[in-house]
Amino acid sequence: MKSGRLGIGAKLLAFAASLLFAVQASAQPDPLPSWNDGAAKQAIIAFVKDTTTHGGSKFVPPTERIATFDQDGTLWVEHPMYTQVMYVLERVPALVKAKPELAKVAPFSTVLELLKGDRAAMEKLTEADLIKLLAATSTGMSVETFGAEAKKWLAEAKHPRWKRPYTELTYQPMQEVLKYLRDNGYKTYIVTGGGQDFVRVYAERTYGIPPEQVVGTAGGTKYGYGKDGKPFLTKEPKLLLNDNDAGKPQGIHLMIGRRPYAAFGNSTGDRQMLEYTGAGDGARLMMLVMHDDAKREYAYGPAQGLPASKVGTFTQALYDEARKKGWTVVSMKNDWKKIFAFE
Amino acid sequence: MKSGRLGIGAKLLAFAASLLFAVQASAQPDPLPSWNDGAAKQAIIAFVKDTTTHGGSKFVPPTERIATFDQDGTLWVEHPMYTQVMYVLERVPALVKAKPELAKVAPFSTVLELLKGDRAAMEKLTEADLIKLLAATSTGMSVETFGAEAKKWLAEAKHPRWKRPYTELTYQPMQEVLKYLRDNGYKTYIVTGGGQDFVRVYAERTYGIPPEQVVGTAGGTKYGYGKDGKPFLTKEPKLLLNDNDAGKPQGIHLMIGRRPYAAFGNSTGDRQMLEYTGAGDGARLMMLVMHDDAKREYAYGPAQGLPASKVGTFTQALYDEARKKGWTVVSMKNDWKKIFAFE
Repeated sequence: MKSGRLGIGAKLLAFAASLLFAVQASAQPDPLPSWNDGAAKQAIIAFVKDTTTHGGSKFVPPTERIATFDQDGTLWVEHPMYTQVMYVLERVPALVKAKPELAKVAPFSTVLELLKGDRAAMEKLTEADLIKLLAATSTGMSVETFGAEAKKWLAEAKHPRWKRPYTELTYQPMQEVLKYLRDNGYKTYIVTGGGQDFVRVYAERTYGIPPEQVVGTAGGTKYGYGKDGKPFLTKEPKLLLNDNDAGKPQGIHLMIGRRPYAAFGNSTGDRQMLEYTGAGDGARLMMLVMHDDAKREYAYGPAQGLPASKVGTFTQALYDEARKKGWTVVSMKNDWKKIFAFE
Repeated sequence: MKSGRLGIGAKLLAFAASLLFAVQASAQPDPLPSWNDGAAKQAIIAFVKDTTTHGGSKFVPPTERIATFDQDGTLWVEHPMYTQVMYVLERVPALVKAKPELAKVAPFSTVLELLKGDRAAMEKLTEADLIKLLAATSTGMSVETFGAEAKKWLAEAKHPRWKRPYTELTYQPMQEVLKYLRDNGYKTYIVTGGGQDFVRVYAERTYGIPPEQVVGTAGGTKYGYGKDGKPFLTKEPKLLLNDNDAGKPQGIHLMIGRRPYAAFGNSTGDRQMLEYTGAGDGARLMMLVMHDDAKREYAYGPAQGLPASKVGTFTQALYDEARKKGWTVVSMKNDWKKIFAFE
């Protein structure tokens, strides 16, 4: 009796579903409306078709569908300076307020000066300075406190050029790629040189990517107990993973444990991730976003004669490797109809 | 026209689905058939009901539903010795064959003696010995080579008592909990003191848990290129995460970035994971499996007067903390109708 009732419902369901899917297939809208027709758009669509067509030679089982995305310069704007560096610098006044003795100590004193005037001059800070500033502003507190501080800043801070929150400066064409891949059974991951804890604060709301799918530069934590006996984790100034260059495939192995089928980047820091992805069997998609649109965004390389940049460097050697290995180079100027959702 | 056709299909689909779901709801089978009725089974069912009832005060959004499981002694047998330790020891003959000079060097020589006779005597190996053996057998090769060797061993090795592959010695009641939680929108993770790369080899087939949901003790890797120019990762003898004790919440933060709503363990190595889970708001489920069934499996504690054991120690202090904090202690003897699927 039960199975009879179930059978009728199931058959009706299958029939209605087949009707619905037939209609949807014939009315399928463009999944990448912000992309101009061209080789890049075609490469993405062909890859998805190849890897999701049952019975095809390049079919990839749904559980193995992993796609990884660099963030800075690939999913959102990274010029004139990485968003997290802006965060670290803009945390310095609060830090100095809590510890006034730092006001006269470099690099904190340097940052206070910079914040009063020319923020672009922050390029002068050395990497050692930045590491010191990062440790001072982003460790020594509980992971919850760090998350709350970063969330508050992200809600208030504005990009100097567009005067909008940084989280609005994501690339609409890449948002469409994320959604298109997810709609086709791909798990989308961020694999960023940025701080894992920082990016996890907004990745779900901004990109639809949950915390457990954010791989980034990560520090250690220390387990301890509060006065109320409740345990909590404190962020420690101890580097576990530098998720740049070779650190990207290492981070992918550590956190995901599978080789991606698609990888997206925009700079030399993404080279090894794309090489590692491309070394797998079957269909693989490797893409590099080239910032060649000074008008709508920025132009920097130095590949193809674009102006050199320390932030998001795209060398000619990387460009040549991409051409040699069949990676797709995306021209922001030519391939993207639209850059931001708010345009 | 298109939307009209779509509308008919969608309405029919919704109608058929509602019919089907109504039938299914009235015919819902017991999700935990290998559990005897009792406080433990009731706690699991109440937790799932509470956290998945829309509009309820304890409702948890699907994206936040994370459950973490220790492996050794929680999901599968860990006596007389952890499976991975058996693996490491049984790799020693092949290692000595490749490097004959090791045959007379401790601890390799000790292991060769042990393998000839009383394997239980391997308890005599010190932790330093085991770390040396682990480095020698499980690092210095590509991640693919390690995976292939572990897979081969798992297909051939047998547990000394049941004479079955280790992967058949999973607890049927816990397999039901994994499935029940997943059927209710939970992402299930293994959080194990065992090696992450080792457990990932069989976790998907054995537990339905994909590699990216296995958190374990993890070492570093090194990125390099083969003679053919293809990149690969080599396992390095460098510890990144010791996923035991405080390392469990640290590993959860590193790899998942969310606090679990449910956590399952069986020994002092799981204490901090359960404390961390319990420190969250709303409904949380913390469970400890107590091995009190010498007949069907093993009996060890030393909690509640059970025999002491170095492998999977469950102290009286842990038992008392569980009682004080309202964690559920599962008695294998009384709560589990069945232990293995093959019974």
